[in-house]
Formats: sequence, structure tokens, C-alpha cells
Amino acid sequence: MTRIALGIQYDGASFNGWQSQPHRNTVQDTLEAALQQFTGMPVAVTVAGRTDTGVHALGQVVHLDTALTREPFSWVRGVNAFLPPSVAVQWATPVTDDFHARFAATERMYYYALYTGPTRVPLLHGRAGYQMLPPGVTLDCTAMVEAARHLLGEHDFSAFRAADCQARSPVKTCYDVTIVPRGQWVFLRFRASAFLHHMVRNLMGCLVAIGRGRAGPDWMRELLEGRDRTVAAPTFMPDGLYLARVGYPDTFVLPEPDLAASLFYGVFDACPAPASRSAA
Amino acid sequence: MTRIALGIQYDGASFNGWQSQPHRNTVQDTLEAALQQFTGMPVAVTVAGRTDTGVHALGQVVHLDTALTREPFSWVRGVNAFLPPSVAVQWATPVTDDFHARFAATERMYYYALYTGPTRVPLLHGRAGYQMLPPGVTLDCTAMVEAARHLLGEHDFSAFRAADCQARSPVKTCYDVTIVPRGQWVFLRFRASAFLHHMVRNLMGCLVAIGRGRAGPDWMRELLEGRDRTVAAPTFMPDGLYLARVGYPDTFVLPEPDLAASLFYGVFDACPAPASRSAA
Repeated sequence: MTRIALGIQYDGASFNGWQSQPHRNTVQDTLEAALQQFTGMPVAVTVAGRTDTGVHALGQVVHLDTALTREPFSWVRGVNAFLPPSVAVQWATPVTDDFHARFAATERMYYYALYTGPTRVPLLHGRAGYQMLPPGVTLDCTAMVEAARHLLGEHDFSAFRAADCQARSPVKTCYDVTIVPRGQWVFLRFRASAFLHHMVRNLMGCLVAIGRGRAGPDWMRELLEGRDRTVAAPTFMPDGLYLARVGYPDTFVLPEPDLAASLFYGVFDACPAPASRSAA
Repeated sequence: MTRIALGIQYDGASFNGWQSQPHRNTVQDTLEAALQQFTGMPVAVTVAGRTDTGVHALGQVVHLDTALTREPFSWVRGVNAFLPPSVAVQWATPVTDDFHARFAATERMYYYALYTGPTRVPLLHGRAGYQMLPPGVTLDCTAMVEAARHLLGEHDFSAFRAADCQARSPVKTCYDVTIVPRGQWVFLRFRASAFLHHMVRNLMGCLVAIGRGRAGPDWMRELLEGRDRTVAAPTFMPDGLYLARVGYPDTFVLPEPDLAASLFYGVFDACPAPASRSAA
């Protein structure tokens, strides 16, 4: 048996999330069906990050064990032939047996694309979050950056944890929150050791509230310290959320995700970014 | 009666083209139904450019005549409340009776977003054209620019005209073709007095063939002079085609389309662009 890692991209608006369900309209079901057609046998995949309905992936990673021997690019081309337009394998590479897509991961990076303005934009529906604002008004990104600073480091993130979250501990380490305003756009990048269920969307709800002046930047610190989900802002829409990259120790040499074909091309180039796949 | 002009954006992948059909899944049917709900009476719109199935609009323009008196932004907010996420009114403005969305237009501008590479990108499906190319290979944009030069000026564009085209004359004036390569992307901008049916997609088919080295840049001149549709390249896919802007004489003062929320944000900033809504 050989262990293979695959890089996956998908349009989350086309699926009921990652994880297999009886109705089968999930990314996992779709990918495993295509792998079975390509290999001629049942294939189970293990994923780095289970994404919710509506959440996209630019740099999702899975692994699988197989008896089939093929060149890496044959996996890409062959599996893609059996996948719908809404999901594609971007790369494939053999890995050592100690690689595990989920447990070997040392960091996850998410992007959020947020558009604001007086009218919604049809071509962004499902691809970007939207906050209606009156003509000429933009979010106060200075306040949002100040609020985000409270998140850095190791914290109990219970205030931003969904009720059904299955993580063993609410304590995670946040390495970076970068906020880039561009006209009526705000682009956000979140890097952490791992994220709780709904954590980025719950953080987004609070950051947008602070950007609108509904609360001051210190509200973020109060929420963190209070650990009470019921007093934080509502969960923000999934439309603009993208799993951008999963980080592993350098001993596992995996291709980088291709971000050139996304809304985020060039956005974070000027900002300090992860230098390698290893944790900060 | 007051004549009102509206700026419209839509996701062409959600509709069977612009023009009203018995099955009613068109942009025109959807927009007229929303206008009827907003005004309480039947409303017929006249459009600047009828787009095909799959073709998007960033800067479509329509006009309508109404007895209803409302502030311009009420038209935007009110009509949008009755429209699905795939289409939206961006602006509304009263115009003089001699304004006509189609016959007063002096130029049309289309954008095409083309992505190339070894694997297709799920998040671009329906939003960008795709040309599969081997790893490390890109289109020869120098050859494409050279080919496009033959298109400038007044020509009989019969070689790029669909069989069912209803234009009275195949003679149109092409003001500008700008081609911007960005990594695996190629962004194109076409400006002309008007376009024949399928003209941009037929030009794209030939430009991509030249970019792949299947023919030299002079093939474009030969095709133009031959006026024979059957020898040109196949019609390219509609996915990356956007009606970006419609130009009118300066006497009609219309808002500019909002391009900030598109794939094309900033792409053509460094290139000579139309200075005003009037023809070049």
C-alpha cells in the first residue's frame, strides 16, 4: 500500500459541506465516488479540515492508502475526469506512512472575502460575504485591526465555538490575523494551530460589528475572557470563507496551493506570510 | 411618463440569456417581473445589449417608461428586493425622452477572463474561460496582440458572425483590443461601435488558437478578408465573457458601472481606457 496526499479545491456553495452524509451531496462523497471509479475499488479519504456548507477550499488536503501504482499527475487527471465542475484535484504526491492529513497538520490558514456597499453584487453571490452599508460608508478597519490583536497567541476560544463543536479542547493558538482594506472590499487572513467549529465565522461576526462601530475594539478581549458564546455576535455568512492552506512539518514536502485563480491573488503579497508549511 | 435608465449586473450562468422566452428563465423576464412587483403595473424594458446564455453583465443598461415617481435610489433598493441573488440593479437615473438604451449607444465594451493551466479551477467554473495547457506552458500573448491589431478600425466582420445574427450590417468599427497576461491568466478588453452575434466568442476562439501556435498572427487578417465563418476557429465558451460598459454621448449623464467587485478590478488600470461615455 502507498499513501497518497491530494490537494483539493472546491466551490462550497455546490455542496452540503465536506463530511459524508446519507443524501451524499457532500465533497467527501463526491471525491470518494470519483476515486472509486478511477481505482476500481472503494477508497476512503482522511481530510485536514472538515468544512461546513457554503465554505470553499483553495488548499484542502486529504490522504488515502492505495494498492494502485500511478504517476502523481495521473491521479490528478484521472480523478478529475470523474469529478463535477465544482471540485477538482490540484496536485497529488506520494507521502510516507507517518503523514496524516489531519493529525500531522500544525496550522490552518483561512481567507475571508468581504464586500460592502449599498447594493449586493450578483457575480459575488456565494463567493464573498456581503455587508450592506450606505453609499460612501466603509468599515472602520483600524478598529478591526486593533480588535484582532487581542486574538493573537494561545487562548480559550469558547466565546467563538459552536454548540456542536467536537474539538477536545477550546484552547488554540492564533498566529496571525491580517486585515487588508481595498475600497469597498475587506480581505482577511486567519492563521492558527487549529480552529473550533464556526470559529472564523463567529470571529467575523464580531469583527464586522466592531468595524460598523457597534462595539469598541476592546469588546474582543472581553468576549475572549468571558468565554460565553451567547454574548458574542451572530455567526457570519459562510459565502466568503475559504480554507486557503494547511501547514505541515517541513519533513513532509507538499506542493503549495494555487491561489492565482482566486479573489485573493496578490492581496496578501505585501503582508508577512507563512514562510513554509511548518508552524510559526 | 418619465424615462428611467437602470444599470444592471447579472451572473449569466444562472439564466438562459437576456431575451424573454416562453419558459421565462431569462434576465429580461426576471427583471420585468420584479419591476411589475415594485411599480404595481406591467413594465417593458429596452436593453442595450442582448447577451447569450452564460454571458455575464457588469454594466448592462436598460430603459423603461413609467408613471411612477420615486427617488432614484428607491428604484435600486425597491426592485432589488424582488430580484433573485443572480441579478441586481446597481443604479437608476431619470433620462430625457431621446435616450434609448440600444439606439443611443455609441460603443460597447466587453471583457473576457481566460484561465489556462493543467487543471481546471472549481471556483472559476462559469466565471472564466478555461484553456487546458501542459504544466509550465502559457499562451503566446505577443502573437495574440499582433493578431488583434488587424481588428482595429472599420471592417466587415462576417468571418466572426453567427449564422442567426440579426444585425443589418456586418460592418462595425473596432476601437480597441487590450490583452493583459498575468501568470496563468489572460484578461482581454474589446471596444467597438457594436458587436455581431457571437463576435467576441468567435474572436476569442481565433485568438486562443493563435496564442497556442496553431496559426500565425496574420491568420486574423486572412480571416477578416475572407469573410467566411466556416474557416475561422470554433466559438469559444461564454463563461469568461462580461458586458462591461455601454457608451453613450456625453449629453446623457449616466453613472459608470462598478467594476470593483469583479475579476477585472485593477487589471486594465495601466492601459489606455475610454475617457468618457462617448465614442472614440
